[in-house]
This record gives sequence, structure tokens and C-alpha cells, in this order.
Amino acid sequence: MNSSLNSRTLFQAALLQSLVLGHYEGSVEVKELKRQGDFGIGTFDSLDGELIMCRGRVYQVNGRGEVKEADDRWKVPFADVFFFETDRTLPMKDISSLDELREKADGFIKNWGPNYFYGIRVHGTFEKVYARSEKAQKKPYARLDEVMKKDQVEFQFEHTKGTLIGLYCPSFMGGLNMPGYHFHYLSDDRKEGGHVFDVCMKEGKAEFCLLSDFKLKLPRSSGFGKIDFN
Amino acid sequence: MNSSLNSRTLFQAALLQSLVLGHYEGSVEVKELKRQGDFGIGTFDSLDGELIMCRGRVYQVNGRGEVKEADDRWKVPFADVFFFETDRTLPMKDISSLDELREKADGFIKNWGPNYFYGIRVHGTFEKVYARSEKAQKKPYARLDEVMKKDQVEFQFEHTKGTLIGLYCPSFMGGLNMPGYHFHYLSDDRKEGGHVFDVCMKEGKAEFCLLSDFKLKLPRSSGFGKIDFN
Repeated sequence: MNSSLNSRTLFQAALLQSLVLGHYEGSVEVKELKRQGDFGIGTFDSLDGELIMCRGRVYQVNGRGEVKEADDRWKVPFADVFFFETDRTLPMKDISSLDELREKADGFIKNWGPNYFYGIRVHGTFEKVYARSEKAQKKPYARLDEVMKKDQVEFQFEHTKGTLIGLYCPSFMGGLNMPGYHFHYLSDDRKEGGHVFDVCMKEGKAEFCLLSDFKLKLPRSSGFGKIDFN
Repeated sequence: MNSSLNSRTLFQAALLQSLVLGHYEGSVEVKELKRQGDFGIGTFDSLDGELIMCRGRVYQVNGRGEVKEADDRWKVPFADVFFFETDRTLPMKDISSLDELREKADGFIKNWGPNYFYGIRVHGTFEKVYARSEKAQKKPYARLDEVMKKDQVEFQFEHTKGTLIGLYCPSFMGGLNMPGYHFHYLSDDRKEGGHVFDVCMKEGKAEFCLLSDFKLKLPRSSGFGKIDFN
């Protein structure tokens, strides 16, 4: 590992657990996210679609499946972003599922150390990408599982070229995020994207970025301080 | 809450869980800790005593109970430090136990929000402070509970004047630290100190410092990446 890893910091706004419990009020501006990274995932105030940060730009996939660039002043209730630097590249060919992709990633991550964070960028051609977004919510907010029952919108993209934006979190992050993998997708033409359920990939490459530092910014409003996580 | 909270960051070197499993190799220098805070707790490479940071100086309480100022080049395998700013002061009088002190702190913290981090500085006169340190370990390192069975050294200080250096971590930190309270002690004359088991306090004051940001630095050596936390 080289010395530049000193500055490799994953920045996280709030907790995945606060989002899951229905805290969708944005606490960090898109502008601030751009100071903390150029690559990452998240969502927007009122759960107004999926957030994808790719090559320094922030995109929203809204509940109609439209992709547009986010305004710097928009706020996010949850996001993970960092500056992507490629530590290693693996070629990918005929990956039949997201599980298979995870297994290939595991081979690399178990070797480098599963107790670090990893950014994963997978660019290539996909036969299928099965993804979702969701419709913006109105207050009082319901829990995320309740929202997804009625306002999740699913997409199946076919013969698409683009990037999977991935994050791996270590096991000890179970109270702050989800250990394991989380992928969003954005097509090269910026017309398709979302939170990824499954993929069928023809060919491409996966790049990995080890992150050994973590910075968490907790919301200082909207009742975050008194959420009951138990 | 005021805007200066933007910069209130708790810095943590490694995980309490890695320390518990016997990873006592220092990964962060005392010099670096001083860049990240002026107040805090931790331990030293090879578990060579308790670390206390108070008013910007770093002290070691070694296994003989001696207190000395730490060298900037010494390394630590675990520490939590931050820049203390007083948000609120509570007078303290006739506190018969650490449990009673925790209850008083709970009253404040539950009101401000138990999902933030809090620094707690308690200065006063104590009838008793029951504390411990431990002897430096040799490799191969045993787990912390095994070490404490044979190399923990206990102290009872009487009629002492000094500072409790405390940290409160929220419930979601169970994978990275210990939710709840953790106190070290340092006497005003810098002759007594250690990790605190119990106190009997005559009078003094407690100051609280809310911390809404958290920065974690994971060790990039000594097998940290592959520790089995399960």
C-alpha cells in the first residue's frame, strides 16, 4: 500500500439506520459532497430519488426514472462519497449476476483486508441492469420499508453501457451503514440509472479503491439526536 | 446549538474492538493526536499504560502508576481525542459513585440527544478515585481480558484534586467503540491518574462538549485489515 492512502477518506452524511427509520430531511448540500469526493452514492431530501456521484458530477434518478444533474444547493439525508483512486483493476467478462460480481470482489477484498472500506467502479457493457428508484415522500415520513412497498419504481435496462458505483463497508459498520456491498448504476449516456438489484454483464473492468479513513457527519437538526435506534 | 459545532470532530485511532482482541501495535503518533485534539483518552504501543490528553498535553500512566509526559514520537494503538469546547457546565457536589455521575450526565445528554458524541470534563476534589493501569506487553500479544487478569495494576487515590477526562459514545457505535461512558483521571499535580473504575467526589463541576462529527483512522499495518471481529 502506498503513502497516498493517508488521505483516502470515505465521507458519510448521517446513518443508513436513520434513513431506514424515515429521517429523509436533507442535512448536507450537494456542494459539500463535492468537496468530500468525486464518486459515491446516496439519496435526496424527502427521498426524492437515488443519488449517483460519478467523475465529480452528482446525478438524481427520480421516481419516473429520469436522470438529471443535481443542483449544488439540494440537500441529502444520507450519502457516502470519496475521491476515487484506482489501486487495482480486474477484467470482467460474462458476469451473470450481482452475486457473481460480489464473489469476484470478495476475492480481492479478502486479500487486501476486509476491515477497510472499498470503493468499486465497474465500467462495461451490460445485457441487463435491474434497478430501482422511488418517489419523493411527504411528511410525516413513513419508514423506508413502508415507502418501498408503495413508492418503489423498478427498471430493467437492456444492452446498456455504463458504470456501477459501488461501496463495500466492513463488518464493524453494522450500526452506521450496511456491511458488505451497495451498488448504484449510471449509463454512459446519462439516461439510465438507479439503485441496483441485479446485473448481467457482458464485459468490462472493475476498479478498486481502498479507503482506510472514515468521516461521519451527523445531522444537527430534525430530531436526529433523539432517534431510537433500538 | 451554535454554528461552531461544524468543526466539532471526535478523532479515533483504530477500534476499541481491535484493542480488545490484542492489537496493541501503535499506528498513530502522539504528535498526530495533538493535531486532532487537546483532550482525550487512549493507550500506548504494547499497551504500555493509560493515555490521558488534558489541555493539549499527553500523559502516560504506566504500570507502576507513574505519570509522565508522553514523547511526540510515541505511537498509540487506540485513542479518542478532540478539541474541548464547553457547551454547558453543571455543578457537582457529593457524588458517591461513578454510577451517580453517569446518571447526572445522562440527564444532560438525553436532553441534547443521545445520538451525538460528548466530551465530559469533570474537575473537582475527590475523596476517592479508584483507577487502574497495566504493564506493557510483549509479543505475541494476548487478548485484553487475559492481560488484565495478570498485568492490571489498581490504584486508590484519596483526597485528590484533578480532572476526569470522559467520553460518551452513542448506541450505534457498538462495532467501533463502547456505547456509553469511559473515564480516565489525572490529578492537578500530575502525580496520579489512570482508567477510572469508581469515584467519590466532594465537589466540582462537569463540563459537556457536544461532538457531531467523527473521524476514524484505521491502521494500515500489523494485520488490522484481516482481524476476525466475529
